Amino acid sequence: MSIFTSIETMENNNQILRELAIKAGAETWEDRKKNQTPQCKFGEDGICCRICSMGPCRITPKASRGICGADAHAIAGRNYVRFIAGGAAAHSDHGREIAHVLHVSSKDGNYVVKDEEKLLKLANEWGVKTEGRDIYEIAHEVAEIGLMEYGKPFGELRFLSRATEERQKLWEKLEIAPRAIDREIATIMHMTHMGCTSDAEALVMQGMRTGLSDGWGGSMMGTEFSDILFGTPTPKVTEADLGVIDKNMVNIIIHGHDPAMSEMIVAASNQADLIDYAKSKGAHGINIAGLCCTANEITMRHGVKMAGNFLQQEGAILTGAVELIVVDVQCIFPALGPLTKCFHTKFITTSEKARIPDSEFIRFDPIRALDQAREIVKMAIDNFANRGSNVCIPSNKQKAVVGYSCEAIIKRLDTVTNSHVDVTGTYRPLVECLESGVLRGAVGIVGCNNPKVRQDLSHIGIMKELLKNDIIIVATGCSAQAAAKAGLLQKEAKELCGEGLRRVCELADIPPVLHMGSCVDISRILLLVTGIAKEWNVDVAKLPIVGCAPEWMSEKAVSIANYVIASGIDTYLGIEPQVKGSSQMMELITEGTRKMVGAGFIINMDPSKLAASIIEGIEAKRTALGI
Amino acid sequence: MSIFTSIETMENNNQILRELAIKAGAETWEDRKKNQTPQCKFGEDGICCRICSMGPCRITPKASRGICGADAHAIAGRNYVRFIAGGAAAHSDHGREIAHVLHVSSKDGNYVVKDEEKLLKLANEWGVKTEGRDIYEIAHEVAEIGLMEYGKPFGELRFLSRATEERQKLWEKLEIAPRAIDREIATIMHMTHMGCTSDAEALVMQGMRTGLSDGWGGSMMGTEFSDILFGTPTPKVTEADLGVIDKNMVNIIIHGHDPAMSEMIVAASNQADLIDYAKSKGAHGINIAGLCCTANEITMRHGVKMAGNFLQQEGAILTGAVELIVVDVQCIFPALGPLTKCFHTKFITTSEKARIPDSEFIRFDPIRALDQAREIVKMAIDNFANRGSNVCIPSNKQKAVVGYSCEAIIKRLDTVTNSHVDVTGTYRPLVECLESGVLRGAVGIVGCNNPKVRQDLSHIGIMKELLKNDIIIVATGCSAQAAAKAGLLQKEAKELCGEGLRRVCELADIPPVLHMGSCVDISRILLLVTGIAKEWNVDVAKLPIVGCAPEWMSEKAVSIANYVIASGIDTYLGIEPQVKGSSQMMELITEGTRKMVGAGFIINMDPSKLAASIIEGIEAKRTALGI
Repeated sequence: MSIFTSIETMENNNQILRELAIKAGAETWEDRKKNQTPQCKFGEDGICCRICSMGPCRITPKASRGICGADAHAIAGRNYVRFIAGGAAAHSDHGREIAHVLHVSSKDGNYVVKDEEKLLKLANEWGVKTEGRDIYEIAHEVAEIGLMEYGKPFGELRFLSRATEERQKLWEKLEIAPRAIDREIATIMHMTHMGCTSDAEALVMQGMRTGLSDGWGGSMMGTEFSDILFGTPTPKVTEADLGVIDKNMVNIIIHGHDPAMSEMIVAASNQADLIDYAKSKGAHGINIAGLCCTANEITMRHGVKMAGNFLQQEGAILTGAVELIVVDVQCIFPALGPLTKCFHTKFITTSEKARIPDSEFIRFDPIRALDQAREIVKMAIDNFANRGSNVCIPSNKQKAVVGYSCEAIIKRLDTVTNSHVDVTGTYRPLVECLESGVLRGAVGIVGCNNPKVRQDLSHIGIMKELLKNDIIIVATGCSAQAAAKAGLLQKEAKELCGEGLRRVCELADIPPVLHMGSCVDISRILLLVTGIAKEWNVDVAKLPIVGCAPEWMSEKAVSIANYVIASGIDTYLGIEPQVKGSSQMMELITEGTRKMVGAGFIINMDPSKLAASIIEGIEAKRTALGI
Repeated sequence: MSIFTSIETMENNNQILRELAIKAGAETWEDRKKNQTPQCKFGEDGICCRICSMGPCRITPKASRGICGADAHAIAGRNYVRFIAGGAAAHSDHGREIAHVLHVSSKDGNYVVKDEEKLLKLANEWGVKTEGRDIYEIAHEVAEIGLMEYGKPFGELRFLSRATEERQKLWEKLEIAPRAIDREIATIMHMTHMGCTSDAEALVMQGMRTGLSDGWGGSMMGTEFSDILFGTPTPKVTEADLGVIDKNMVNIIIHGHDPAMSEMIVAASNQADLIDYAKSKGAHGINIAGLCCTANEITMRHGVKMAGNFLQQEGAILTGAVELIVVDVQCIFPALGPLTKCFHTKFITTSEKARIPDSEFIRFDPIRALDQAREIVKMAIDNFANRGSNVCIPSNKQKAVVGYSCEAIIKRLDTVTNSHVDVTGTYRPLVECLESGVLRGAVGIVGCNNPKVRQDLSHIGIMKELLKNDIIIVATGCSAQAAAKAGLLQKEAKELCGEGLRRVCELADIPPVLHMGSCVDISRILLLVTGIAKEWNVDVAKLPIVGCAPEWMSEKAVSIANYVIASGIDTYLGIEPQVKGSSQMMELITEGTRKMVGAGFIINMDPSKLAASIIEGIEAKRTALGI
């Protein structure tokens, strides 16, 4: 039997759950997708405008402009950058929440500083006095400075100085160096207001600026502060796919993005009295499993099992074995409300930003978070007795190694460095592999699932093709989980690799797909690529390194894609951005940005073709570098 | 001949211009409206979701939920509050720009402090030391504090303390007291992101909070800082409608919202050397006329003539007599690009926030603003020679008295106060008129034009009906200009009033419709109503005072409507908010908010019926007060 899981096996497992849904009278995304087909072409092409109440307007053969005179380019451009505003807001607000948690951290509180070294490093970077000061005094000052990044009236984002000098100068020259994070979001909303900007290029520029405020701002703070509070990830072995749900345990699913609450749920589930309580109710114990980026956050730091990615959230409930699902923000199907009502599953929402009908709301309070978490875990345990008889958990699960923060990657690289000759603590070995051609390139594969394509097929198919061609992969978000479910995060996945990559995996003792965390942790990828560029002394746009979002779905993905290209990294998309109705927008996002920032989108809905063009793109970059 | 202008006359004038457009091969909004009809019902009903790329989704008889499970209420609610985010961003960013201008004001610079008294009052309110300090030091500190209102990480907006204690307590209790302005906008964008809030009530609450951050935040700062820099308005006589364009003059149209650039254009146009230069080119002089809120800003402070409101922006160009149109932000038809190409008219954009194809871009720089303005005025003069022979200016124009800031209203009220017996400088006389029933009530009529209804008919029709019923009117924005064009801003309009209102107009020597400024100046109306509530010691929601937006069109209007209702003022809408596809949203915005904040929307597209329900609403409030 293969040590890998095929898409067909995954789909067969899913089919079993679909049948359970029908029996339970429950609806799933497959039903709703069918009901929504065919989808509105105007919307898909980005040429429907609903920005004022003179409309809606749309571009048709008889109407080349909306009532105000906005043409296809203006309409598609505005819609596109509002996507970025939504995405940057979501990511950055996540960073802000963690900053507020850091701001109330204390020695005896629910939240303590776990990575003092990282805090002190950041404090030094930001000019915060550290000598002779209490670590929490430092933490609170750092948090306040971080919070000011959202709204300071003057200057630009602090983390921009982490980029290469070339990038910094380019952003200044193009006037896309972001100011305060919230301000860039508000600027998009203003620019796209009726009667403001209708020039597509100006919109695209502000889109990149706002994207940068996410990647080098809100998201990077989300990652940094989470590492400080919860620990910087190190490699860990875990498991992935719905098979991690255990029929003998009290199963709690944590779902969403912000790790603050889920960290406490994990902590509570490890407390002896609650485990005893679970046993007293006839369970073998408490089993926590994650969905979406909450899974990524918690698996990276604690090896908590991953139940699945975005399109599996209903599947987890359909097993009938989930006592409770607790969520925070983003990517949570409102469908979970009615769905959980078909089962015994309790559905707990915790964030004011994600209020969902048919859920029980327990407002997250960082001061009482552990108590709240204990209360939630207890609710799950009490609900174990209510589980129905129709439990059906698909057997599939895969072993995975996770936890590759930049720090963890450097530690692995140090093991292949001759410490007598070379400097340790750098990306030098990786640069040498890339330069020599042992590795042809590196690709960051990220993003969601999207019913517009077969679930996970693009993620996994593209990954396998790249591995075969000696291209190492870093992954985050739902893409990392697709890899995990397929078995690509186990070290044995070296079998799928070309000779060079296989050798690198063996020497460094790593899997060929490195799980770098949640979607906000794409900030880790930015720092990784920046580190390589600095070590190599080559501009990011020239490196044989690209990004890929094969099944992206959310506004966050568009924000990410924009900071990635503005950072000089070509980005391959497997889902079309909704701007097809504007030739100018299509040109701008594919070729236009390339002229400005040296990178753009390459779009193809066929995963094999997308993989081929990634390889081609990387080889072209190698040729240009003369390697 | 009547001293008033009827809708029919206005429409006849417009028809002349339409014929000119046809001759010139130019398209106008009437053509585009026709091409866009019928409009998409899903969009009109608010049940089309384009918030992620799984979609677009829409609610139909066969599909009660989108792919993620969002139902009609979630979809309509999210779309609705994103309208508020767009509107609050536009208004507040306007306030921010003025704050930045205040921050670079200097004794010898382009921008000086014109209303020192207002600055000192605000400095005291905000705890800024004033004694022995240079006025510009104070101005810059006040500006910085103002700028921090956009992004401060802790606390709530400073201007909330200007509201009645009742309102402040209510906002705290409901948790809708806004924090930093940009943060509320970002919060909407996050909450409405895929997989976040799908609970319509939570969305509506955040909508009010964000609206409040506009009205009691960005807009109020826009007004305050503009008054400090450009002077607090006092009554002035001027003229309105396209007839103010003068065929013998160099005509410059200023259009948009932010007064910073237009103030300089006005200043430049008064400089002797430029007037001489215009004369040297065969013109009688330089004629500045405003469109939209720029017109309002500049007429309020300088009595500059108003060429017209929103749907007349193309009409101004069609006269063939406009040498140059210079715009800043918001409500500027992208159609002006191609339209001005059909004429000799130069089209100048000045804001990075409103880049428009087919325009010449001169980026506004507050340090060089007067020089830039002189350059623009010179361009217009140089273009006078290029005017075509087909000049056709509709003859209609109306006399108007404008300039009724709160300070100006109080000054008028002081004239009817017996200073030997009563305190002056209060709204007491107005309260007495309302309490006694000499005035039955007061209505703030505001907002845009919208091709969904006959232009200006609703504004003017409703005003006339209210005047007849002894209801005094304050107006801003395009509504104030509709009133001006109809002749309702002249003191002679007392003829249209009931006996009580006529007497008040005579005694106070005011027109029955008071022009209070631009749309951001609805903050003046908030302060006026708050002043009345405090003087009367009655909660705002109980006063016989309501708001009305008969022809609203923009997202800003929805933001306004939300801070108005959250401030306790019932708001009568003549255009339907696009939420009809959700029964829950319809209930929430009409009755739901009434239970929370004591006010809600009353919606009717028939202006006579809307007027009748305003009168009924006011009388019901009187009855409830026992007066």
